[in-house]
Amino acid sequence: MASTPGQVIKCKAAVAWEAGKPLVIEEVEVSPPQAMEVRVKILFTSSATPTSSSGSQGSDTRVPRILGHEAAGIVESVGEGVTDLQPGDHVLPVFTGECKECDHCKSEESNMCTLLRIDPDRGVMIGDGKSRFSINGKPIYHFLGTSTFSEYTVVHVGCLAKINPLAPWKRSACFGATVNVAKPKKGSSVAVFGLGAVGLAAAEGARVSGASRIIGVDLNSDRFEQAKKFGVTEFVNPKDHDRPVQEVIAEMTGGGVDRSVECTGNINAMISAFECVHDGWGVAVLVGVPPKDAVFKTSPVNFLCERTLKGTFYGNYKPRTDIPCLVEKYMNKEMELEKFITHEVPFSEINKAFDLMVSGEGLRCLIRMEN
Amino acid sequence: MASTPGQVIKCKAAVAWEAGKPLVIEEVEVSPPQAMEVRVKILFTSSATPTSSSGSQGSDTRVPRILGHEAAGIVESVGEGVTDLQPGDHVLPVFTGECKECDHCKSEESNMCTLLRIDPDRGVMIGDGKSRFSINGKPIYHFLGTSTFSEYTVVHVGCLAKINPLAPWKRSACFGATVNVAKPKKGSSVAVFGLGAVGLAAAEGARVSGASRIIGVDLNSDRFEQAKKFGVTEFVNPKDHDRPVQEVIAEMTGGGVDRSVECTGNINAMISAFECVHDGWGVAVLVGVPPKDAVFKTSPVNFLCERTLKGTFYGNYKPRTDIPCLVEKYMNKEMELEKFITHEVPFSEINKAFDLMVSGEGLRCLIRMEN
Ligand SMILES: NC(=O)c1ccc[n+]([C@@H]2O[C@H](COP(=O)([O-])OP(=O)(O)OC[C@H]3O[C@@H](n4cnc5c(N)ncnc54)[C@H](O)[C@@H]3O)[C@@H](O)[C@H]2O)c1
Ligand SMILES: NC(=O)c1ccc[n+]([C@@H]2O[C@H](COP(=O)([O-])OP(=O)(O)OC[C@H]3O[C@@H](n4cnc5c(N)ncnc54)[C@H](O)[C@@H]3O)[C@@H](O)[C@H]2O)c1
Ligand SMILES: [Zn+2]
Ligand SMILES: [Zn+2]
Repeated sequence: MASTPGQVIKCKAAVAWEAGKPLVIEEVEVSPPQAMEVRVKILFTSSATPTSSSGSQGSDTRVPRILGHEAAGIVESVGEGVTDLQPGDHVLPVFTGECKECDHCKSEESNMCTLLRIDPDRGVMIGDGKSRFSINGKPIYHFLGTSTFSEYTVVHVGCLAKINPLAPWKRSACFGATVNVAKPKKGSSVAVFGLGAVGLAAAEGARVSGASRIIGVDLNSDRFEQAKKFGVTEFVNPKDHDRPVQEVIAEMTGGGVDRSVECTGNINAMISAFECVHDGWGVAVLVGVPPKDAVFKTSPVNFLCERTLKGTFYGNYKPRTDIPCLVEKYMNKEMELEKFITHEVPFSEINKAFDLMVSGEGLRCLIRMEN
Repeated sequence: MASTPGQVIKCKAAVAWEAGKPLVIEEVEVSPPQAMEVRVKILFTSSATPTSSSGSQGSDTRVPRILGHEAAGIVESVGEGVTDLQPGDHVLPVFTGECKECDHCKSEESNMCTLLRIDPDRGVMIGDGKSRFSINGKPIYHFLGTSTFSEYTVVHVGCLAKINPLAPWKRSACFGATVNVAKPKKGSSVAVFGLGAVGLAAAEGARVSGASRIIGVDLNSDRFEQAKKFGVTEFVNPKDHDRPVQEVIAEMTGGGVDRSVECTGNINAMISAFECVHDGWGVAVLVGVPPKDAVFKTSPVNFLCERTLKGTFYGNYKPRTDIPCLVEKYMNKEMELEKFITHEVPFSEINKAFDLMVSGEGLRCLIRMEN
């Protein structure tokens, strides 16, 4: 690695030439990092949700593109002005950044950095509006500021969390799956809408926090068996009832759950997730990303009766500040990560990883960059 | 007073014979308190908002009725099972109760007592479903469990806050006006929608908490001058702009206020109050009571970007537990109460008190029971 800094690196990357089509492994050229940027050698990456992997949250016209937003790697070189990372550091690229200087980064409550917040439409580096990837001189777009489906990638320093070098690579690469969004009180009841990877992470978070009842809600009853491993104690399929699922849950719980977490992105599920919390103290948290034109509708009296609704992004964690501590927690076995990783493939078989996700068979498929 | 316990008391009360018509002072009979009830001699009461004084929040058919829900008085006698109050105690009747036994009362977060929560449609005592007021044997309905426009009233023990006997009567009688709903952090920016008594109390709460900017929003620009006394620093009349007021506020504050409080009850103001808070950390609190068929609509992305919306009822205070402490705060001059009391009339002129409220001239008119 000694000779690469300052040089263009040729390496393999999985390129999306057309939205929705299989990725093609190509040789790409990766330019050196510019000011405030870091070039990272990816060791493990992971296939996340079909939505984000197909890039459909962003513009489909941003092709050719290198996808991937969950990974673990090692710093190869740093650009000008980067002082808190150096070659050899272990890092996790994160699709939402932390500049440490804007109002959001300075606020204790927000993690929605003005400079580096998630932007699925941006396919270039923030500094100069250009890409660091190319094939025969033709630029290839970045994705979510991470583009981890490549042996080397260039990332803004604000989108890298430096982690303990003793943390196991494979686990760390899937860290994003488990970002904990529900922190209910011990003994409380929690409803989780949607039992995909995001919902299961919310259930796991509730389980670890000591929730006594975790009610899983999904239109697909097949999801329940797996969900039990993540602490889900009861299951409701809205299709099994001819009244709104919020009424079913209110009846099961004597008025509503203490907390609910919406992890489907479906607008009706969002409304149900809000209306199923108990008056007086219930809190509903939206995590699922809705279609752009969705409208949330409810009677304002539901709020007046002291229900709270909020949303969270990336579990409300500030990536650079909070993730290193969270990784320590995993190392101390305060939370399980293995059960999220249901499959593993070599980089050459990356398309298999997506098939597993799309079919619903897998939660996270680990992708090994080196054979 | 020695001979009244256990006896029917004949006294004067202001009776609403027909919704919207002036009240008529009549001689009424007040039965002794039954189990868990307390008979209270009212010394001062106050005219609150026109909405509640006309009883229009409840059913208009519940007449004849004795209105009034803000007062200070002294315990005359107690019914069976009442152990924490005795004749001579100084009390404030409160329209929302605290039984101390239900899930809500036991929860640290809620003040929406299952047994004694506000119910504008109920005109009788909870214990036996009957009224304690009558004229020539014909029952007169209660209002909000308080009916303070009477020299004597009967109230459930759970709807009485026992206060320091040294607290000045007049101030205490208007305590309800000032229940503080906004507790923003020092230096934060707050928008208050609606500058009636409720909105001014919210502004006052923000001022006392050290908010640096308090933006008052009202359709009536006349309200601004008075609002300055309650800490409002800037004023926006939505009528002066041809874009939504939330956009105007976002521009004034570099992205939105830290907190907003909705005190109009208008559904559009509720939506604006939510959408004008800053992403990442903004919290909007609904206080105004909307019409029954109102629908709150917004894009769910506004929540996902880490905005919070909640409602509060009676400032989230538990009446029996919290009000005695709050009264102490007033006595220690940690909060001003005088400026809410803009007028005072004797009981015989109670209808004047409403005229002052309806015309918008007064915030609270104190009504003196004894001449
Ligand atoms: N806010 C964040 O930080 C964040 C991070 C990652 C993903 N997400 C979002 O979270 C959501 C879930 O992601 P995932 O990977 O778990 O997805 P997934 O597709 O694996 O799981 C979604 C589940 O929801 C169920 N579902 C769909 N509509 C439903 C309804 N109306 N009622 C009940 N169940 C319903 C589906 O059957 C499925 O099991 C997506 O919208 C994703 O974009 C948000
Ligand atoms: N949640 C609670 O605990 C609680 C307690 C008491 C009163 N309330 C409610 O609070 C609300 C306010 O009470 P009040 O006594 O101050 O009333 P008020 O009528 O004196 O004041 C309301 C103000 O809002 C203004 N307004 C109306 N529509 C508006 C809009 N779209 N945009 C901006 N301003 C608008 C009016 O011009 C007026 O100045 C009422 O709905 C009342 O029922 C709630
Ligand atoms: Zn920032
Ligand atoms: Zn109670």
